Amino acid sequence: MKPWEAYFRKVEPYVPGEQPKLSKMIKLNTNENPYPPAPQVDEAIKNMDIQKLKMYPDPTSEILVKAIAKNYGVKDEQVFVGVGSDDVLGMAFLTFFGSEKPIVFPDITYSFYDVWAELFQIPYVTPALNENFRIKKEDYYTPNGGVVITNPNAPTSVYENLDFIRDILDHNQDVVVIVDEAYIDFGGESALKLLDEYENLLVVQTYSKSRSMAGMRIGYAIGHPTLIKALNDVKYSYNSYTMDYVTLVSGKASMEATEYFKECCEKIVATRERVKKELTELGFSFPDSKTNFLFATHKTVPAKELFEALRKENIFVRYFNKPRIDNYLRITIGTDEEMDALIEFLKKYLG
Amino acid sequence: MKPWEAYFRKVEPYVPGEQPKLSKMIKLNTNENPYPPAPQVDEAIKNMDIQKLKMYPDPTSEILVKAIAKNYGVKDEQVFVGVGSDDVLGMAFLTFFGSEKPIVFPDITYSFYDVWAELFQIPYVTPALNENFRIKKEDYYTPNGGVVITNPNAPTSVYENLDFIRDILDHNQDVVVIVDEAYIDFGGESALKLLDEYENLLVVQTYSKSRSMAGMRIGYAIGHPTLIKALNDVKYSYNSYTMDYVTLVSGKASMEATEYFKECCEKIVATRERVKKELTELGFSFPDSKTNFLFATHKTVPAKELFEALRKENIFVRYFNKPRIDNYLRITIGTDEEMDALIEFLKKYLG
Repeated sequence: MKPWEAYFRKVEPYVPGEQPKLSKMIKLNTNENPYPPAPQVDEAIKNMDIQKLKMYPDPTSEILVKAIAKNYGVKDEQVFVGVGSDDVLGMAFLTFFGSEKPIVFPDITYSFYDVWAELFQIPYVTPALNENFRIKKEDYYTPNGGVVITNPNAPTSVYENLDFIRDILDHNQDVVVIVDEAYIDFGGESALKLLDEYENLLVVQTYSKSRSMAGMRIGYAIGHPTLIKALNDVKYSYNSYTMDYVTLVSGKASMEATEYFKECCEKIVATRERVKKELTELGFSFPDSKTNFLFATHKTVPAKELFEALRKENIFVRYFNKPRIDNYLRITIGTDEEMDALIEFLKKYLG
Repeated sequence: MKPWEAYFRKVEPYVPGEQPKLSKMIKLNTNENPYPPAPQVDEAIKNMDIQKLKMYPDPTSEILVKAIAKNYGVKDEQVFVGVGSDDVLGMAFLTFFGSEKPIVFPDITYSFYDVWAELFQIPYVTPALNENFRIKKEDYYTPNGGVVITNPNAPTSVYENLDFIRDILDHNQDVVVIVDEAYIDFGGESALKLLDEYENLLVVQTYSKSRSMAGMRIGYAIGHPTLIKALNDVKYSYNSYTMDYVTLVSGKASMEATEYFKECCEKIVATRERVKKELTELGFSFPDSKTNFLFATHKTVPAKELFEALRKENIFVRYFNKPRIDNYLRITIGTDEEMDALIEFLKKYLG
């Protein structure tokens, strides 16, 4: 080991879902949207003034912030934007979780939370979900340094209603409570409704799922102006110009394309509901998903075997080799054609 | 104060250079390139497949990394990319500076270094430049946790040759030495030449100045594969997908447009050299810049007064209200027409 390596930050890096580069594949492994971004995004990028790229982008991301604020009926000062919701959440961990008490999030949830906690040396505890992958809310009643709830949860797809979120908030009035709603647009009710009542609530959403823009990297947080200001202060201390000009222009166009957005979400929900039936008939079971994916286990065939069999057919789903969930597959809802191909293969394989 | 605010990370946020939104102005305040990005960038964006935005971008940024590696004749494993050089440098501070000994950088230099050190709780010392804004290299011979040198330095524009950098490296063989070369393409010789000799050297460059792409947010670091791997490990622990699809495509196109790049740099250098003469005639003095800006002081008129007078004419330059440099203006080299307008105004004002 070279002497300077002694000072390197020790991390166990997050392993992102595989991004295979095959020309012909069915990609149901990273919960992307199977439909393209709104046509207005295409237009906005094509009409963009490339000359503007020579200048720094607006550090306040004004046009994007305003479009988001308008869409949700909140004030501009309530909106923070970042390079995907990972940037937003990572920044929120760094900004809000300076307590010596541990922050709390479930043992099975978005796998980046413990990575950020380790990176920023934030103490944390991860109470176990129950056997149906539901949060035991009493676990969140103990003194803590902050709470993070993914709702609907990933990779389980379980959704908790607003009474549940309200209960968590009522029992955690002294710390910041983050509700990560990456999948909320596929049937859940957003905690944005609770913002007026809870100044310590931060709701995080993303363009990567319901808005078909994973490739553009846009996430946002909505909360009380004091939370948003704190986030911006830390963000400006790290990198003042995170949102590039193309991102601002295309993010605005997408947020304004309300009709297209609704249509896409509805199509995905419809596909999901019929796939639920078909997978059930094939012997799968899963929590009743309100997301764009299913978290499915088969009554006889191990998940790992199915994962590998699908892979050979160039059908990619996500398999987590982790305690408690190693017999589940996380299957993204694709187009009807993609899901037909999946079902057809499973029928053959299982039959 | 609300109870949760006690846990907020305390920062003094960096204040970025003003980004005025006037339609008619001469913007010489943030060292942007006055020329547009290469025509190949325009083409690449126009020909891009918008459909791809629905998918996550390649987390390894392969096409961009390969283009940079090829351009500099290094291996792919020697290149790290980020959202502007601020992201690259911030990530490098977080990754490499875990020693209990202080890191070292000059008292007058890029003003983000102390902000990052504070943000990540890294101890630091800032030995004073001498009266000609030169680094006293003996100050860097003491035991430390790492060294950061901007070369050419900002906002002073002073360039040190490779013998100087080599001396710093020879005296700091046990820690990572970062050479921040944001302005190297305007006449300096890059420390990239020293990479084969020093495994602890990390050279950082950016698309924001010489490549006219401040609005796209691309920076990169080149160094030994062990340094690059450590950076990537930390980056993947924060945000796996920082570089969006448009950025990858346009960054590759720009890096390959070698001819255009050279022409732009040459034009800026030519303009700079004649502006040096004209400003000298008007009673200004400045270090002999090898950058795309001049750091100028006038023999009789205070910098602050000039700054304000220029501002009234919608000519924006940068003024730092800081000890030792509060009688200087940092003036970006714009187009010939922009510099003519500046000179003309100064002639009138000072005459």
